[in-house]
Amino acid sequence: MNTWGHIFRVTTWGESHGQAVGAVIDGCPAGLRITHEDIQKELDRRRPGQSTITTPRSEKDTAHILSGIYQEKTLGTPISIIIRNEDVDSRGYDELRHVPRPGHADYTFHVKYGWRDHRGGGRASARETVARVAAGAVAKKLLEHREIRVLGHVIDIHGIQSKFVFESPEDLLLAETSIVRCCDAAASDEMAACIERMKEAGDSVGGIAEIVAFNVPPGVGEPVFGKLDAELGRALMSIGAVKGVEIGVGFLAAKLKGSEMNDQFTTKDGRIEPKTNRAGGILGGISTGAPIISRIAVKPTPSIGMRQTSVDLETLEEVDLSVSGRHDPCILPRIVPVAEAMVAIVLADLMLAGGFIHPARLL
Amino acid sequence: MNTWGHIFRVTTWGESHGQAVGAVIDGCPAGLRITHEDIQKELDRRRPGQSTITTPRSEKDTAHILSGIYQEKTLGTPISIIIRNEDVDSRGYDELRHVPRPGHADYTFHVKYGWRDHRGGGRASARETVARVAAGAVAKKLLEHREIRVLGHVIDIHGIQSKFVFESPEDLLLAETSIVRCCDAAASDEMAACIERMKEAGDSVGGIAEIVAFNVPPGVGEPVFGKLDAELGRALMSIGAVKGVEIGVGFLAAKLKGSEMNDQFTTKDGRIEPKTNRAGGILGGISTGAPIISRIAVKPTPSIGMRQTSVDLETLEEVDLSVSGRHDPCILPRIVPVAEAMVAIVLADLMLAGGFIHPARLL
Amino acid sequence: MNTWGHIFRVTTWGESHGQAVGAVIDGCPAGLRITHEDIQKELDRRRPGQSTITTPRSEKDTAHILSGIYQEKTLGTPISIIIRNEDVDSRGYDELRHVPRPGHADYTFHVKYGWRDHRGGGRASARETVARVAAGAVAKKLLEHREIRVLGHVIDIHGIQSKFVFESPEDLLLAETSIVRCCDAAASDEMAACIERMKEAGDSVGGIAEIVAFNVPPGVGEPVFGKLDAELGRALMSIGAVKGVEIGVGFLAAKLKGSEMNDQFTTKDGRIEPKTNRAGGILGGISTGAPIISRIAVKPTPSIGMRQTSVDLETLEEVDLSVSGRHDPCILPRIVPVAEAMVAIVLADLMLAGGFIHPARLL
Amino acid sequence: MNTWGHIFRVTTWGESHGQAVGAVIDGCPAGLRITHEDIQKELDRRRPGQSTITTPRSEKDTAHILSGIYQEKTLGTPISIIIRNEDVDSRGYDELRHVPRPGHADYTFHVKYGWRDHRGGGRASARETVARVAAGAVAKKLLEHREIRVLGHVIDIHGIQSKFVFESPEDLLLAETSIVRCCDAAASDEMAACIERMKEAGDSVGGIAEIVAFNVPPGVGEPVFGKLDAELGRALMSIGAVKGVEIGVGFLAAKLKGSEMNDQFTTKDGRIEPKTNRAGGILGGISTGAPIISRIAVKPTPSIGMRQTSVDLETLEEVDLSVSGRHDPCILPRIVPVAEAMVAIVLADLMLAGGFIHPARLL
Repeated sequence: MNTWGHIFRVTTWGESHGQAVGAVIDGCPAGLRITHEDIQKELDRRRPGQSTITTPRSEKDTAHILSGIYQEKTLGTPISIIIRNEDVDSRGYDELRHVPRPGHADYTFHVKYGWRDHRGGGRASARETVARVAAGAVAKKLLEHREIRVLGHVIDIHGIQSKFVFESPEDLLLAETSIVRCCDAAASDEMAACIERMKEAGDSVGGIAEIVAFNVPPGVGEPVFGKLDAELGRALMSIGAVKGVEIGVGFLAAKLKGSEMNDQFTTKDGRIEPKTNRAGGILGGISTGAPIISRIAVKPTPSIGMRQTSVDLETLEEVDLSVSGRHDPCILPRIVPVAEAMVAIVLADLMLAGGFIHPARLL
Repeated sequence: MNTWGHIFRVTTWGESHGQAVGAVIDGCPAGLRITHEDIQKELDRRRPGQSTITTPRSEKDTAHILSGIYQEKTLGTPISIIIRNEDVDSRGYDELRHVPRPGHADYTFHVKYGWRDHRGGGRASARETVARVAAGAVAKKLLEHREIRVLGHVIDIHGIQSKFVFESPEDLLLAETSIVRCCDAAASDEMAACIERMKEAGDSVGGIAEIVAFNVPPGVGEPVFGKLDAELGRALMSIGAVKGVEIGVGFLAAKLKGSEMNDQFTTKDGRIEPKTNRAGGILGGISTGAPIISRIAVKPTPSIGMRQTSVDLETLEEVDLSVSGRHDPCILPRIVPVAEAMVAIVLADLMLAGGFIHPARLL
Repeated sequence: MNTWGHIFRVTTWGESHGQAVGAVIDGCPAGLRITHEDIQKELDRRRPGQSTITTPRSEKDTAHILSGIYQEKTLGTPISIIIRNEDVDSRGYDELRHVPRPGHADYTFHVKYGWRDHRGGGRASARETVARVAAGAVAKKLLEHREIRVLGHVIDIHGIQSKFVFESPEDLLLAETSIVRCCDAAASDEMAACIERMKEAGDSVGGIAEIVAFNVPPGVGEPVFGKLDAELGRALMSIGAVKGVEIGVGFLAAKLKGSEMNDQFTTKDGRIEPKTNRAGGILGGISTGAPIISRIAVKPTPSIGMRQTSVDLETLEEVDLSVSGRHDPCILPRIVPVAEAMVAIVLADLMLAGGFIHPARLL
Repeated sequence: MNTWGHIFRVTTWGESHGQAVGAVIDGCPAGLRITHEDIQKELDRRRPGQSTITTPRSEKDTAHILSGIYQEKTLGTPISIIIRNEDVDSRGYDELRHVPRPGHADYTFHVKYGWRDHRGGGRASARETVARVAAGAVAKKLLEHREIRVLGHVIDIHGIQSKFVFESPEDLLLAETSIVRCCDAAASDEMAACIERMKEAGDSVGGIAEIVAFNVPPGVGEPVFGKLDAELGRALMSIGAVKGVEIGVGFLAAKLKGSEMNDQFTTKDGRIEPKTNRAGGILGGISTGAPIISRIAVKPTPSIGMRQTSVDLETLEEVDLSVSGRHDPCILPRIVPVAEAMVAIVLADLMLAGGFIHPARLL
């Protein structure tokens, strides 16, 4: 199941150490202006090698647009984008051929398919998310056409919390100035130091990112099984390292009373809106007009240098392994553009499904 | 979007105060033995009026099986089940016709569809989940045929935590002896008392439920967008009051190091398995063979007797409202069978998709 | 796969001699006015017992609308319609339990599912089409809201051809005055006489029906795999007895030159339109604005009184059988409303997909 | 809607004069041996420039496999294949920018999307079928693994009929020795001469092709809306020039009596099978075990040199046009591999859906 969506449909393909990865985006209406730079700038945000705390794997990740866009305008036909795998180094993986790495999909792919491309994690590699980001860039352009912005930031790494409070989309752009994508400068420094320490120890850390969609009109989301929060839940959970998703106050809701949780209604500029936004912009699976707020719990990178135990798939004997290779000690900074992409794809799909955007062409 | 699933497809229909609600289950293989009692016993677990802390609305919720089962055996054709709405009392809702209740879908349905069946929440009512439970009963039977069991329990209400630790499926059956469906007897009493207090105060409370699927074979789940955890995320988030979902250690993963998070591999009875289960039974979106562990954060019931502010949809004037009517002050006890149903439906669908169950007939 | 459609989704359920058959129509926008009579009048057109040449099985086929319509207006939620099976007489079928009838699905269902509800053909019975007609009635109402009409007539029975030429939708209403639904009065009489003769001989006959959709705007249909003609091909072929489908000149195209086939363009009232309509209103899978013309080849009813050979599924011995029971000697007159329903469902789905109708509500 | 299928899912992309066309094949189980040559040989059968009666456009149509196959064996992950557009000559199309060609999709794409890539027909070009043939090659390999073969031949061009009668798959291989892909040598010569005449006259001709699938086991096909014939109807109708589809005796059924149409059952080698095959191998939408026989009516190539009338999209004035450029005067010979591909894709999808092939890996 490598296709996402009902109307705005994204298909991704490609193995980590194969020739290329790519995305086909079907269902984007005609007449949307998209340049190569629109795609590339999002890929660059996800690109490895951005700072000392990301993997040294250095890939340019250049997007090649092969169809669906003519004279920088979408045609309403499928947009095919490919990104070549350039800095592939499969040597470190040979010894892992028969030994599944703890925390990775090696074992489960082996069981499911009988065999696999073990090099660099194959299809289960985080490299697959390059294609999501490319597709997300198209979704973002479509949403921008309706003045919607999707922005993310890191709010927790290994327990170090951001104290940043945002009010407008512009506030969140601050994240781009931090190597960990955290808007709170003090926390950002502390997080970066923590990651450096883990890297030296051959260990890794997890954290929490928050993604916010601003200016989504009320009415987006399809009851009963196509609820906006349900689709976000699936989209964000489909990102490799994510172990939890919450909307609005999320797990805190378990501790609240109804009188504390409910957002009461008022009017502003002649429109109804909730006074508070504990719901995270969604009621009954449909947007209220308030910002859509989601958060993801991200596990620590499973590739660690410390010695771990695994089992040889052929001999069934326990073996020790230490995962060398070039890995991010913390995936949070680079997961932000991926999560933004998924939120944007969900919104594009549901905006189309709800009739907020014409399915064939931008009028 | 009232249909769930790719192969095991569940369509639900019905408004809270309409004539009936129902489910059509398509894609269940032929030859599965199902009695009326198999369906009914699950509906009874969800039924209102089970105890002093649930709504006094008294519905028998009798399942009528209209197709797809002949001589107590599935035919491979769609199974249609309807449940009539019997104890409907729409009087309390007339004044709410133009005033959206805070925390409910009234406002968002109004915006999306222009008009709605306001009686009892209409389609957005929790009553819709009766149909899910009926469909879930079919899914459970199919899973039982493969010796899989899906069981849930309440682990937190308003901060009161269960200290219960389970080891086997049987342990979780204890939940059925508690009116809040909590296996820890002491916590259960405290939770019940808390709910009673809230009921008297005209307020409500939220909590956390945990759903566990035992004996799922390794290999279930479809990368990339059909990951088992992604499908669980969508399924559980599609339940009205759920604000968060986590798998395995969930949000705790944000605080762990890789060396603490990774489940190392070992062998047992000649089979590879993880030594620990922090991953909650899923790696790379595919089951590992360990129990599948999910948790949901449930918000307090939005229908509360305390005075709240809303806005009249026609005059746009602020109005005070107090939601009378017959409501659960805490939805946790009754959400457990609903969440189990969704987990069972997801697993049935993915077991079929993965070739673990023959799609046409049970061999 | 008992669900049709992407946006306007129709799920049918029910066995011929079970308790009921039904349809759930999901994706119909809110605000469409539909009365019980709108549904019933279409069921009455398909109902058995309309004349001496249809089956004497007498079912009232009363539609019960259980959800999705409130105060005679759609809610945007699933519309559930059920029709009870009343005049069920399963006695004649006992001897057929182990002997598949030639030309029926008995054998293939047996092979596929291992067992089946053999009474009256079970799920494979033409009775399933009642549910399609109910769903088609909703689709027709939605199309009427855009001034589109879908009308069918019989143009050939056993080689007896209608010479009728239509110019407007009203012309085709003439079919309703003929017991074979043929607009050419002379041919109609001849066809009826032919059917009577076959009935007496214990045999049956086939024929051709034509379905025309008037006033479909240009632009309906989704390239590449969702072409309007492709969807019509699938929809019409999904009707039990259909062995062929053609659009516009259809198989005659094989004999034409390009200069004879191409419809050249002209303008009328300031709009571009084809001068002729050999294409049947579709180019590149998208409507041109001209009437959408489709035809279906319908095989003779397989249930015949004449002696035929079959094989006992258990003993594998050849046995003779003669299908008694109450059957139409020619299905053409009653297939017309079914085929109209499928064309209407396809158009409703593609009109929604193409943005010609708002997916949430009629503005 | 550029994706076909439920389990074996094919997505095609690309415009005629863009950089490339391609297909992503998702849902092919792991462990299937596929070489580059397996794909290439099918593309070569469809390639332009094969003989004097096809277009002189000379493209090598080299397949590049970018993912999903590792060491010549499928991984169970999406197979991405691209074919570059090499011999692109867009000069002839500039004058057609505002003038829709009769019989082409120019006008309908213009209406639907507002603008289009007019060069070479853009997305609506028959060039899109290269991608289908590549995907079909994968489907064929999967079917061959189950000993199923899909073979086509031309049986009618402009009324010249093949008298060839086949008995085994091998018989139909004769088609590959004919430049029109007709197994009847005398008819083949006549057809070729006819096409040459049309070419000289600046005109074109249509015809009929027949596609046969041998050795399909009984039980393939999903009632009610996923019938094998319904899926074939959609698949074949989705090919640009097809105006009609029939199964088995097809339109001839309209002229037959039930006693002539029904295939009676007998046994052979201890298995039940129909004595005759008027049904074309399908009953109730499910395969009987007999060869699956389908035929398509193909219209004459709409691109003709003769003068035709059209309308300028901007000025709305009538203009004369003559389509020069490099076109096949008869598409039949080259449509055979495309139609085979679609039949193979349908069968692969339904074999997987029916549990005839394991969805994750070849056991």
